[in-house]
Amino acid sequence: MIYGVIMAGGAGTRLWPASRQEKPKQFLPLTGQHSMIRQTADRINPLTGDERIMVITSEHHTEQTLKNIPYLRPEMVIGEPMARNTAPCIALAAARLHAADPDAVMIVLPADHHIEKKEAFLEILRTAVEEAREHHTLVTIGIQPTHPETGYGYIQAKDASHQTGNTLPVERFVEKPNLARAEEFLRSGEYMWNSGMFVWRASSILQAMEEHMPDLFTLTLGVRGAQLTRPDLLAFFEGAPAVSIDVGVMERASNVKVIPADIGWSDVGSWKAVYDLSVKDAEGNAENIASEGAGASGSATNATFIGAMNNLVMTETGKRVVLIGVEDLCVVETEDAVLVLHRDQAQRVKEAVQK
Amino acid sequence: MIYGVIMAGGAGTRLWPASRQEKPKQFLPLTGQHSMIRQTADRINPLTGDERIMVITSEHHTEQTLKNIPYLRPEMVIGEPMARNTAPCIALAAARLHAADPDAVMIVLPADHHIEKKEAFLEILRTAVEEAREHHTLVTIGIQPTHPETGYGYIQAKDASHQTGNTLPVERFVEKPNLARAEEFLRSGEYMWNSGMFVWRASSILQAMEEHMPDLFTLTLGVRGAQLTRPDLLAFFEGAPAVSIDVGVMERASNVKVIPADIGWSDVGSWKAVYDLSVKDAEGNAENIASEGAGASGSATNATFIGAMNNLVMTETGKRVVLIGVEDLCVVETEDAVLVLHRDQAQRVKEAVQK
Repeated sequence: MIYGVIMAGGAGTRLWPASRQEKPKQFLPLTGQHSMIRQTADRINPLTGDERIMVITSEHHTEQTLKNIPYLRPEMVIGEPMARNTAPCIALAAARLHAADPDAVMIVLPADHHIEKKEAFLEILRTAVEEAREHHTLVTIGIQPTHPETGYGYIQAKDASHQTGNTLPVERFVEKPNLARAEEFLRSGEYMWNSGMFVWRASSILQAMEEHMPDLFTLTLGVRGAQLTRPDLLAFFEGAPAVSIDVGVMERASNVKVIPADIGWSDVGSWKAVYDLSVKDAEGNAENIASEGAGASGSATNATFIGAMNNLVMTETGKRVVLIGVEDLCVVETEDAVLVLHRDQAQRVKEAVQK
Repeated sequence: MIYGVIMAGGAGTRLWPASRQEKPKQFLPLTGQHSMIRQTADRINPLTGDERIMVITSEHHTEQTLKNIPYLRPEMVIGEPMARNTAPCIALAAARLHAADPDAVMIVLPADHHIEKKEAFLEILRTAVEEAREHHTLVTIGIQPTHPETGYGYIQAKDASHQTGNTLPVERFVEKPNLARAEEFLRSGEYMWNSGMFVWRASSILQAMEEHMPDLFTLTLGVRGAQLTRPDLLAFFEGAPAVSIDVGVMERASNVKVIPADIGWSDVGSWKAVYDLSVKDAEGNAENIASEGAGASGSATNATFIGAMNNLVMTETGKRVVLIGVEDLCVVETEDAVLVLHRDQAQRVKEAVQK
């Protein structure tokens, strides 16, 4: 059977002040009426059904998750007592799914990405599932880069025929590059962005972990039983190394494949990205409400634009927001903060959080 | 004796959202720690003392006025049951002051102007008082125009020697001109801005009213007694025409003088003006708190500027306001609204209020 595994552990400082520790990005309706995590679940639901979607999130967010995705089975929502990057999270999910279904194929997805082309995405996943099921490979989804992004890891394919839907052997995984290297990657045409989306048999990833992260593999033996208590989870995460699946497994394993995917992907990693994905009026202005059910395509309008172009307004409180004579701004208003940001400087939001 | 008469009837839509019907501009600390009305009273206090300052304001704002200027005598604060422009307000003040002190000289001042050079202003007033007292003239304070402003009335002097402190005969008063005429006025060197500040004997202005606004003069007979009830006020204002003192008297009277005044005057008529008058940091950013006692020179800091220059932030709620990568903005945050304004478009704030 096919299972969705949604990793929802992110804290997200790049979308401050809307995204906070108590309400991280995945719970915000940044690109539609529903929260990003709900959209992520809905997106793979045609392949998994309601019953076979697992969410791994902070233990503080399990209730919020169940409220966001009403069709989730409560036992499929696992609360991490601490953040430990992606390898432990994936190991836990793989161990439990494999124990219940030795033939389980996992689609591993970050909770807070946007995918525009939903049908194309499902098609890619079907190809990936078939590849993983037949050949016991570790499949990763690669995104054709459009600019020399320094915020993502890259995947170099052995074969440069990056047509969407192809299954290509992987030369190597590369961590976030500096700008010069990112430009080189872009020019070479051999690199794709590492989207952090993976498809594999639970058995395949466990086998790779046994080989490359044996201590973590051993720890999974304590969490695969039907009953999963907080002490079990605590023992697991306290013992697990805070390592990404890329570093822990993907960079070392030999049975890795990448599928180039033209699916309108975005990690929605900045207010610029939120603007780019928003529905705009004739003047290029967008309005976004930071609460479930009243998002980009909702009908609430608290913003007034006068001689203002290409702006994004996001309000959490329902206050009237008036923009006059300004361009290319993101204005975000929450219970305790107001951000006025020039979109070109979206990466500097982190500095505000630090202050 | 010398009396201050502060006209505080303004509603002020140009400084929305800080300025509202319930809390108009004169009660905001836009240019210092104290409200504008308090600063206006303090400014003339050296000439009048605490006891001889009268404030005429909306009847909804009499308490707020007394709270703002603790040294006012309560019987010197008069609440208008309705707004009727400046002529009735001045007639009322003149009638009452004249009844109590036939030699009263009135300094009439709008409550919401800023004057940078306080000593020079007092010097001008002393000259004006002497002129008014000796020659029974109606003295108006003229401001040397620095740009072709279309928002003010103009005063043409008969004599072009506009040196500050001179007392010049007036050729005529001109209402707010269009841009072409304003430019002509500026070029000619013969025109000054009508600041709306006047000095005269109470007897002189009453005499001019008897001549030019006889109905209004007659109405004053009902409000000059020591006791002033709301029915008295209602009868007076309901009967009075809504006419400005310029149109009703100044344009018609022959005994009018103007004193050119170089006093750093501003009517603080827009957010641009508030920015211009604010204390700025090295990057040209200013912060202003919209509550008495924590104004421009106060110590409260709710704003953070990152790569941002020449902006004004005003917060009423104490929320953190972060500006990143933006220039020349005014950001005003109140209990129910957020304004993000390019300073060059400050005159468009009225459109927001209409919407």
